[in-house]
Amino acid sequence: MIAIDWGTSSLRAWRLDDASGRILEQRRAPLGILACDGRFEAVLGEQVAGWPDRRVLLAGMIGSRQGWREAPYVACPATPASLAARLLPLQVPSLGDHEVAIVPGLVTRDADGVADVVRGEEVQVCGLLDALDPGPHVLCLPGTHCKWVEVAHRRIDGFRTAMTGEFYHALRAHTILGRLMPAMSDESAPFDPEAFLRGLARARQPGGLLHHAFGVRTEGLTGALAAERLPDYLSGLLIGHELRDLAPTQGVVHLVGQEALTLRYAHALRARGCEPVIHGEDLAARGLWRLAST
Amino acid sequence: MIAIDWGTSSLRAWRLDDASGRILEQRRAPLGILACDGRFEAVLGEQVAGWPDRRVLLAGMIGSRQGWREAPYVACPATPASLAARLLPLQVPSLGDHEVAIVPGLVTRDADGVADVVRGEEVQVCGLLDALDPGPHVLCLPGTHCKWVEVAHRRIDGFRTAMTGEFYHALRAHTILGRLMPAMSDESAPFDPEAFLRGLARARQPGGLLHHAFGVRTEGLTGALAAERLPDYLSGLLIGHELRDLAPTQGVVHLVGQEALTLRYAHALRARGCEPVIHGEDLAARGLWRLAST
Repeated sequence: MIAIDWGTSSLRAWRLDDASGRILEQRRAPLGILACDGRFEAVLGEQVAGWPDRRVLLAGMIGSRQGWREAPYVACPATPASLAARLLPLQVPSLGDHEVAIVPGLVTRDADGVADVVRGEEVQVCGLLDALDPGPHVLCLPGTHCKWVEVAHRRIDGFRTAMTGEFYHALRAHTILGRLMPAMSDESAPFDPEAFLRGLARARQPGGLLHHAFGVRTEGLTGALAAERLPDYLSGLLIGHELRDLAPTQGVVHLVGQEALTLRYAHALRARGCEPVIHGEDLAARGLWRLAST
Repeated sequence: MIAIDWGTSSLRAWRLDDASGRILEQRRAPLGILACDGRFEAVLGEQVAGWPDRRVLLAGMIGSRQGWREAPYVACPATPASLAARLLPLQVPSLGDHEVAIVPGLVTRDADGVADVVRGEEVQVCGLLDALDPGPHVLCLPGTHCKWVEVAHRRIDGFRTAMTGEFYHALRAHTILGRLMPAMSDESAPFDPEAFLRGLARARQPGGLLHHAFGVRTEGLTGALAAERLPDYLSGLLIGHELRDLAPTQGVVHLVGQEALTLRYAHALRARGCEPVIHGEDLAARGLWRLAST
């Protein structure tokens, strides 16, 4: 089968062994839905060229309103089986024999009725469910929008999104906090654990994020922290607030995502008294295979 | 005397009666320190042209590192007298007989030692101190950076800054939250108290600001709130978090600032069980007169 994680900014495609889910081949392109200019059928054709496999499963923002076709959200609690039952078949005449379908996202609700949604990460969660005991477990998928997922008995009970990554970029690039910092393009700066821990500690104080954020400026103004240390202080402050509100106070937290970011979260979780367990990055492929095999 | 509030984006000048502090004349110009290109002396000369009064007091960002001359912060607790004792005299040869001085800002520290600073609003607080009984009182000065000030016995004991206004603009203009909203330039939209109250109520729920912010998107995505109502929902959410962390749970809160913003805060304070008292906008002139008369 062919598994594709088609997000906002990039596309990853895997050719998988039908019986085992083993990765046979993989491709990656900067052709997220925003870069496709609506030419989804043509882009898909190019990406799977030469791969004879019949079954093609797409996950991610390709199933959103801005994507190829909107695949309605499935409500939590959800299982790989309930997601598989709601795959949205797509007619793609130019692909001939291929059978294409889109994986729906998930929707859950907070106690006050406000909805939360996920689209893309749910297949990574499905991929991880296979590897875990029945649980319950807490999963954390850091990113622009970090997802905190609760699973039990191989069922996704609910989740909460935190806009931590997007806040970081908006505050650094578009508020007074960035003025004392080095340019954001300078990504060569090594991780500064001490500044990060100081941000985490600040998040445990009273005052709230809107007040603590101003402290990023005053710590720079007063010379308490050098300019090049402020980005990791801000990062620690934001992740500290996220953990304060969304993480358990102890026990295992399963981390899934990009290495640099999961290491940062692992650091913060350990400082909180949790036990982070980091998982690999190819869980999307595993999850898509799991859905196709259900 | 001449009193000038010289901020980042604008300059306000008042000619005051020395004996009573009554406003005789006033001028306003979009000549904040960022618009002066370093020509502070020339701009000041133009603004006070024809005003013969000898004494000129400047407050605001003009006394910052980016301004004309840095006036070092005075530590809290502070009084009008301790501020007046630390006025920074400026030699301005081209102004002849005028005696020009800059008012210092204030610095305070949170329990964990992180500094907070104010520069400009402290003269409004001095202006209000005259009108209040000895207290103690809580003051709130909403704006890009909202200031919460504690005063007692006509002394400023401390304060805390919340970046609420700047967060609102950065989130609306530079994150996914703005995408479902009308353009920010459309400032004609009337205040939507129901959407604002919904945001306030959401801030009282568990989950934290980083999670609640994503709800602004999902409330739009699911159609629970129409696009044009989302800006006031976001505003209520942010002000709700600010109040949750920084406001008292009851009693009088004195509001000082722009009318549209103080009305919004008054709404939120009443919903919390506080009693807002709104004060006029010319407190900066009153405070500068108070400092000159000390």
